[in-house]
Amino acid sequence: MEPAERLALMRYCVRCGTGLERREVYGAERPVCPDCGHIHFLDPKVAVAVVVEQADRILLIRRRGNPEAGKWSVPAGFMDAGEDPRRAAEREALEETGLEVRAGDLWDLYPRSEPHEGADLLLAFRAVVVGGQLNPGDDAVDARFFGKDELPEPIAFGSARAILAGWRGAV
Amino acid sequence: MEPAERLALMRYCVRCGTGLERREVYGAERPVCPDCGHIHFLDPKVAVAVVVEQADRILLIRRRGNPEAGKWSVPAGFMDAGEDPRRAAEREALEETGLEVRAGDLWDLYPRSEPHEGADLLLAFRAVVVGGQLNPGDDAVDARFFGKDELPEPIAFGSARAILAGWRGAV
Repeated sequence: MEPAERLALMRYCVRCGTGLERREVYGAERPVCPDCGHIHFLDPKVAVAVVVEQADRILLIRRRGNPEAGKWSVPAGFMDAGEDPRRAAEREALEETGLEVRAGDLWDLYPRSEPHEGADLLLAFRAVVVGGQLNPGDDAVDARFFGKDELPEPIAFGSARAILAGWRGAV
Repeated sequence: MEPAERLALMRYCVRCGTGLERREVYGAERPVCPDCGHIHFLDPKVAVAVVVEQADRILLIRRRGNPEAGKWSVPAGFMDAGEDPRRAAEREALEETGLEVRAGDLWDLYPRSEPHEGADLLLAFRAVVVGGQLNPGDDAVDARFFGKDELPEPIAFGSARAILAGWRGAV
C-alpha cells in the first residue's frame, strides 16, 4: 500500500485512542493526537534482500503471495524496527530458501521504483551460504540457483530486475 | 525511543480505535486489532545524512535538540515513508545548513550502534554543494566546514563518529 493510502487510514491515536487531527509539523502534514500530543510519523517500509552466488549462479525464489505472486525475485522481506538489516536479510533468506547465509557488503540500495512495491527502500546485501539445505518455505513456493543465461521469467519488481541486470553485467 | 518502548506504548488500533491485542504474526509478537484485523508493524526509523566535502574539509552541524544537543554531527534527519532517500538527505541538508546539495553515491550505511540513537538505520550519501549560502537553521545552531585536523568535539552518535573516522582516513 502506498504511503498516502496508509496515512489516510490513520484515524485514532495508537497510544490513547483519541481521534487524530492533521497538523503541519516537522515539514509535513501529519496525524497528531489533540489529547496526548503524539505525532504519528509514517516511517518507511524497508525491505532487505540477499544476492547469493554459487558457481556463477544466483539464488532466486518464486513468490507465493501478492504483490507479484508467482514471479521470481531475490530472497527478501521486511526489516522490523530494532533489527539489524543484515540479520533481517539472513532471517528472510533462511525462511524462504532453507539456506543459512551470512550477509556482508551492501550490493546496492533501491528506492521504490513502482507504486505497488511494498517497500519504500530495498537494501540488497551480498551473502554467502554457510549451512542449511535448499528447501523453499514461508513466502516462497520455489527456490533455486540460476545461471546468467537461464534466468526465469517474469521477475517481480523493478528493484529485483535492477539487481539481476547488475549481476548479469558483473558475472 | 527504542523500538521495544515504542511497541509497548501502542494500545489502540490506528484505523478503528479498538484496543489492540498482542499476537504472534509474521515471525514476531505484534499489536493486532481484534476488530478490523489490522497488524501494526513497527517499521524502522531511517535517518539520512550527507557527507559534503570542500577543499578537504567536511560540512558539520551543531545539534540544537536532544538527543545529543550541543554536539556536532553531519547534516541528517529522518526520511518519511514515500520519500526518496537522496531527496530526503538533500532536504535535511538545506534545512540545517542553508546549502543546496545534490546527493550521489552511498557513503555507507550504519545500523543503530547505541540504544539512545533515534534511528534504526542511517544512510549516508556523498553530496556536492550546488547552491545556497551557509546559514544554520532548523535543528542546527551552527554549520561549518572543518579540516581533518580541526574536527570539533564532542561528536554526536556512534554513526557520525564512524563517518568521520572513515573520512579522516580517506582524505
